[in-house]
Amino acid sequence: MLPRPGSKTRSQLWRVADGNWLQRADLLATEEPMEIRLLAANERKTLSVTMRTPGHDFELAAGLLYTEGIIPDRHAIARISYCRDSDLTEESRYNIVHVELASDRLPELQSLERSTFTSSACGVCGKAGLEALERRDLTPLPSGPEIAQEIILGLGAELRARQGVFEATGGLHAAALFDTHGALLALREDVGRHNAVDKLIGWAVLEGQLPWKERIVLVSGRAGYEIIQKLIVAGTPIVCAISAPSSLAVDLARAFNVTLVGFLRDGRFNLYHGRERIRAAEPLAP
Amino acid sequence: MLPRPGSKTRSQLWRVADGNWLQRADLLATEEPMEIRLLAANERKTLSVTMRTPGHDFELAAGLLYTEGIIPDRHAIARISYCRDSDLTEESRYNIVHVELASDRLPELQSLERSTFTSSACGVCGKAGLEALERRDLTPLPSGPEIAQEIILGLGAELRARQGVFEATGGLHAAALFDTHGALLALREDVGRHNAVDKLIGWAVLEGQLPWKERIVLVSGRAGYEIIQKLIVAGTPIVCAISAPSSLAVDLARAFNVTLVGFLRDGRFNLYHGRERIRAAEPLAP
Repeated sequence: MLPRPGSKTRSQLWRVADGNWLQRADLLATEEPMEIRLLAANERKTLSVTMRTPGHDFELAAGLLYTEGIIPDRHAIARISYCRDSDLTEESRYNIVHVELASDRLPELQSLERSTFTSSACGVCGKAGLEALERRDLTPLPSGPEIAQEIILGLGAELRARQGVFEATGGLHAAALFDTHGALLALREDVGRHNAVDKLIGWAVLEGQLPWKERIVLVSGRAGYEIIQKLIVAGTPIVCAISAPSSLAVDLARAFNVTLVGFLRDGRFNLYHGRERIRAAEPLAP
Repeated sequence: MLPRPGSKTRSQLWRVADGNWLQRADLLATEEPMEIRLLAANERKTLSVTMRTPGHDFELAAGLLYTEGIIPDRHAIARISYCRDSDLTEESRYNIVHVELASDRLPELQSLERSTFTSSACGVCGKAGLEALERRDLTPLPSGPEIAQEIILGLGAELRARQGVFEATGGLHAAALFDTHGALLALREDVGRHNAVDKLIGWAVLEGQLPWKERIVLVSGRAGYEIIQKLIVAGTPIVCAISAPSSLAVDLARAFNVTLVGFLRDGRFNLYHGRERIRAAEPLAP
């Protein structure tokens, strides 16, 4: 029986520096496809196949179902397991996740992710992305919490201190959840930026910890539409990215009142929306 | 009439450094959805919606159709244009691309991208990714060309010197095409890593310049399965990434004999496969 795939894979490579060629073993971020199959009584449907880094697979499934609006909370899920069909090959044993719903019937499903814009009234534009979220009864987040800028500035160091696979392979995106004191509550990593976020949200779905009213999420790279959209669904009031947000990410943050921080590195950051949730440093006493 | 969206969007933000808050205008990478509609005689089908940075949209469409195996070359395309339906809103005017095929009928289409693995014989595993490419009659690339390591080491500086939007916004992925002397032939940028590669390949499709027998491609970030798969379809013998490849990217490079370079920065690189295409420096004369 093959071992269960890990998040890292050992590989031989040549390291070339200063004209010297050294052959050595190094670690790669594992990338494998994962299929989600949705089951209800006698109905069954393959929902999506995504490339992902093995690990926290059930959270990835739960997070994707939640952020796509297919389940409202963990009570909609009866059971999550790896597929045990006898005709499965060894290699795909841990790559098919069954999600058994608590209801008798499967929900109406459109193809995931890409369909968000096609049914929009306005055709295909950024505004359609906002309208798609509004159609899901998502409303702008209420004000609060308010946190000190020092908390924000410290998040990056905390993430790096805890990022395991990333340090070893340099190949993974990370998403981390913090409380309002800057304490790291959960960290998920994946070759796919969206997957890291879905795993983090899926963890919270399964723990019954949503929506995130007093939470901060930090993502390791850039923040585009899909990342912000998922975090809005989870109710995240403060979203930080180590690198740049896209134009549509900023539009979404403004429309749904999310505090959006970018380029959080080297003791500085850019704030694109949501000034009132971040408290500047007190002036020093004279 | 609204202006055509550009690749950069101006935005107000707070820049926070050393405890100082400065309000200023900055540039964001524009992110907008794009829908591809395929037409043949009286048939019409919406193929996919992808988030992208506006610009080189026809190349993006051509590249995606080519890398997904829907068209073999530019002669399969009769015309590419923006949709002119009268019920389109102003905002979506430049977000729907019509591709009119030269044939009478639409090809058999499965849903794009995600479907690669579902029909595989082995279920869902990395091997299925390899088999999917073999089913498309893709075979390992022949040997050659052989280039000096100095050429590889110089690509990063060349990319940075030419990367326009990236420098301004920090938010874009880039893919660049070089000849075997290290001269930059084309550069494409996008919020989506796959889109930058599809735009680059689409440019070559429309120019009739495929397959890439004597070419090197450099991507600005990490290299995963989908990037390498697209570049194998284009016949790219040497692929370089500024950051890490995934495990499946390395598997694909080995199976299809692609020279794969990672962590190309600071005068060094890692080589994962295809040693024979890179010539080490000559030893200095005594």
